[in-house]
Amino acid sequence: IRLTSVSGAAVGKGNFRHFMEKELHEHPAVLGDTLQQYLDPATRAVALPPLPFDPATVPRLTMSACGSAFLAAQVGRYWIEQLARIPVDADVASELRYREPPLAEGGGAILVSQSGETADTMAALRLLQQGGQKVLSVVNVPESSMARESDGALLTVAGPEIGVASTKAFTAQLALLACLAIGFGRARGTLDEATARLLASTLTEVPGHAALILEKDAEIRAMAAEVAKARDVLFLGRGALMPIAMEGALKLKELSYIHAEGYPAGEMKHGPIALIDTAVPVIALCPSGPLFEKTASNLQEAAARGGRIMAFTDAVGAKALRGFAERVIELPTVHPFAAPILHAIPVQVLAYHVAVLKGTDVDQPRNLAKSVTVE
Amino acid sequence: IRLTSVSGAAVGKGNFRHFMEKELHEHPAVLGDTLQQYLDPATRAVALPPLPFDPATVPRLTMSACGSAFLAAQVGRYWIEQLARIPVDADVASELRYREPPLAEGGGAILVSQSGETADTMAALRLLQQGGQKVLSVVNVPESSMARESDGALLTVAGPEIGVASTKAFTAQLALLACLAIGFGRARGTLDEATARLLASTLTEVPGHAALILEKDAEIRAMAAEVAKARDVLFLGRGALMPIAMEGALKLKELSYIHAEGYPAGEMKHGPIALIDTAVPVIALCPSGPLFEKTASNLQEAAARGGRIMAFTDAVGAKALRGFAERVIELPTVHPFAAPILHAIPVQVLAYHVAVLKGTDVDQPRNLAKSVTVE
Repeated sequence: IRLTSVSGAAVGKGNFRHFMEKELHEHPAVLGDTLQQYLDPATRAVALPPLPFDPATVPRLTMSACGSAFLAAQVGRYWIEQLARIPVDADVASELRYREPPLAEGGGAILVSQSGETADTMAALRLLQQGGQKVLSVVNVPESSMARESDGALLTVAGPEIGVASTKAFTAQLALLACLAIGFGRARGTLDEATARLLASTLTEVPGHAALILEKDAEIRAMAAEVAKARDVLFLGRGALMPIAMEGALKLKELSYIHAEGYPAGEMKHGPIALIDTAVPVIALCPSGPLFEKTASNLQEAAARGGRIMAFTDAVGAKALRGFAERVIELPTVHPFAAPILHAIPVQVLAYHVAVLKGTDVDQPRNLAKSVTVE
Repeated sequence: IRLTSVSGAAVGKGNFRHFMEKELHEHPAVLGDTLQQYLDPATRAVALPPLPFDPATVPRLTMSACGSAFLAAQVGRYWIEQLARIPVDADVASELRYREPPLAEGGGAILVSQSGETADTMAALRLLQQGGQKVLSVVNVPESSMARESDGALLTVAGPEIGVASTKAFTAQLALLACLAIGFGRARGTLDEATARLLASTLTEVPGHAALILEKDAEIRAMAAEVAKARDVLFLGRGALMPIAMEGALKLKELSYIHAEGYPAGEMKHGPIALIDTAVPVIALCPSGPLFEKTASNLQEAAARGGRIMAFTDAVGAKALRGFAERVIELPTVHPFAAPILHAIPVQVLAYHVAVLKGTDVDQPRNLAKSVTVE
C-alpha cells in the first residue's frame, strides 16, 4: 500500500464518533466545492477546462472504475448518453481488458478513482491509451499516478477521505460527472441553453438539499435498527438510481457484513424475488416521476410475498407507498437529474448506522483497504 | 400468463425425480441439436440464414434480455466483440428504455428469450424498432410474439422446458450465440478461416463434454451438501465466465433461496470481500489459461480471510488450487471459447442438488413464473 499525499493521521475527527460520520456531514460542503469548480452559480453556466478529447465530435466513450467509483461511472454513463447522446460503455476495470473491447478510432475514455492509485484502473488506463483512446481521469488526489499518466484530469474537491468506505468522494464524483454531462450536451448541441441552465440550477441546489437530508438522521437511524436485524437485504432502483441502489448494497456489505444486493427494480421478478420472505427488507430508491409507477408495482409484488418494503422517495411517492411500505423516508422533491446524488447520501447514512448498531469497525471494515493497489 | 404452444402437462418426466433433473440430462442432445442448425459438423463451417442486419457492416449492436437470458446475452457480447470486433451494448430489458440509449443509425439488435413472450423484452423490441434498429430474436418458441414481431428470428432447439428455472434453454442460447459470433467474425473478416474452423470444431465437441460433465453428478452432489448449509454464497468468474458466475448465483437464489451473488473476480477486493468469513463459500469458475493466475490470487486472498474456496476448473487449474481450496471439481480441458457453455452445466446441477437437499420446490420455486408477461 502506497501512501497518498495527505496522511490520515493528520486529520482529526472533531466531535464525530467516526471519520465516516464526519465525512458524511461534509457532503454539503464537498458538493458545493466540487460544483463550483465547473459551474458558475451566478450565470448557471457549466465551464469545462480543455479536455483530452472533444466532446462535440468524440465518436464513443469508455468509462471504467472499481467499486463505488464504478457505480458513479455508471450514473455518469446514463447522464452523458441522455444529455449528450454520446454512446458510452461502462465496465469494471478488472473486466475491461478481458472483454477486449473494440475501441472506436478517436474515442475517449473517462476513468474514476478517489485515490488515483487503484491498480485495476491504472491497468485499464494503459490498455485504453495503447488502444489510441484519449483518457480523462476524475480523481480526488491531484498528484496521483492516474492524474499524472492520463491525458487530462479533473479534480473532485472532497478533501482527504479517511473512512475506508467512500462517502463524500463518491457524491463529489457524481457532481463532477453531472457537470461533464451538461458540458458535453452543450458542446454537442444536443442540449439547449435553457435546459442546460435549468439542470445547472438543479445542481446548485444539491448542497442545500444534502444538508436537509442529513437532518433526517434520526429517521434513518430508526430504519437502521430494523435493517440491522436482517441477514439479507435487496436494494432496488431504476435508471440512474439503479447504480445508487447498488451503492447502497455495497456500503451495507462493506460496513455491516449484511449480504445486501442491488438490482434493477424490473429484474427482481426475473429471479431475485424467490429470495423474498418476511426476513428480507426490500429498500427502494423511487422518487415520483415516470419510472415510479412500475417500481411501485414491483414493490407491491414483493409486499404480497411477505417482503418488508422500505423506501427513499419524495412527498408524492411517499403518499403512494405508505399503504404497504413499512418505512418511507421522504426526501426533498428535486428534478430527476439531481436524484442520484441526493439518494446516495441516505443510503450511506443508513449503512453507517447499521454498522454502528452492529458494532463493526466503521472506519476500517474487515478485509478492506482504502486504496487497492494490487490487481 | 399466456400459454405457449406446448403445454407442460403434455410432457412426462420419465424416470427423473423432477423436470429440472430431466432437463439437465437433455443438455448434450439440446446442444447438439441447436449447433446442428447453424454448424456443419463435417465441414466445420458456420452457416447463418439471412439476418435482418448485415454483420459485415452493422456499426453497432444492442443486446437485451431478462434474467438468465440476459446472462447468455452478456456472454454473447464478449464473444461477438472478441471475434467480430463489433461494439455491443448489453442491457437488461427493463433498463434499456430508461437509459435512452443513443442508438446507431443502421444499427442492429439481438434479443434473447426462451418463451419469446417476456413482457420487458417485448417492450425493448418495440423501442429498438422505433429507434430504427433491425432486431434479431433468439427464441425457443417459433410461434412466439417475439419471433413474429422481430425482423428475424433464430431458434434454439431446446424443446419444451418445464422447470421454471431455465437450464437447457440457457445453454442452447449460448450455443446459438457462439455460432453467431463465429459467423459474424467471418462476415466481417476479423476471423480467419482456420481459426473459425478451430472454434467450430471446439463447439462440435461441446455435447460430448456436456455428457462427461453430467457424469460428475455425485461429486457435485457432495459439494451441494456443503453449499446447502450456507446462507450466503459468492460466485466468481472473469471474462466470459463472469456472466456464468452470475448464472450460478441466480440459479441458487431461485431454487434454494440461498442468497448467492455473482461477481467479477477482480471486483471482490473492492468491497464484497468484507462479507467473507468461514460461513461463506466462494465458488470460482476458473479453468487454466491467461485469466487463471489473477483469479487464483483473488481466491487465495479470500482463503486467507477464512473463506471456503470451491472451484470448477480443469486438470491444470485443479493442481494449482488443491493446496487451499476445500473442493475442486475437475471439468474436461477445453478451448476457452467453449468454457462458458460447459461451466453453465455444473452450476445448474449444483443448484439442483442444493434445492433437493433443502427440500424446496425444484420445478416451481416460490414467487416465480416461467414466462414473465408483466413489466
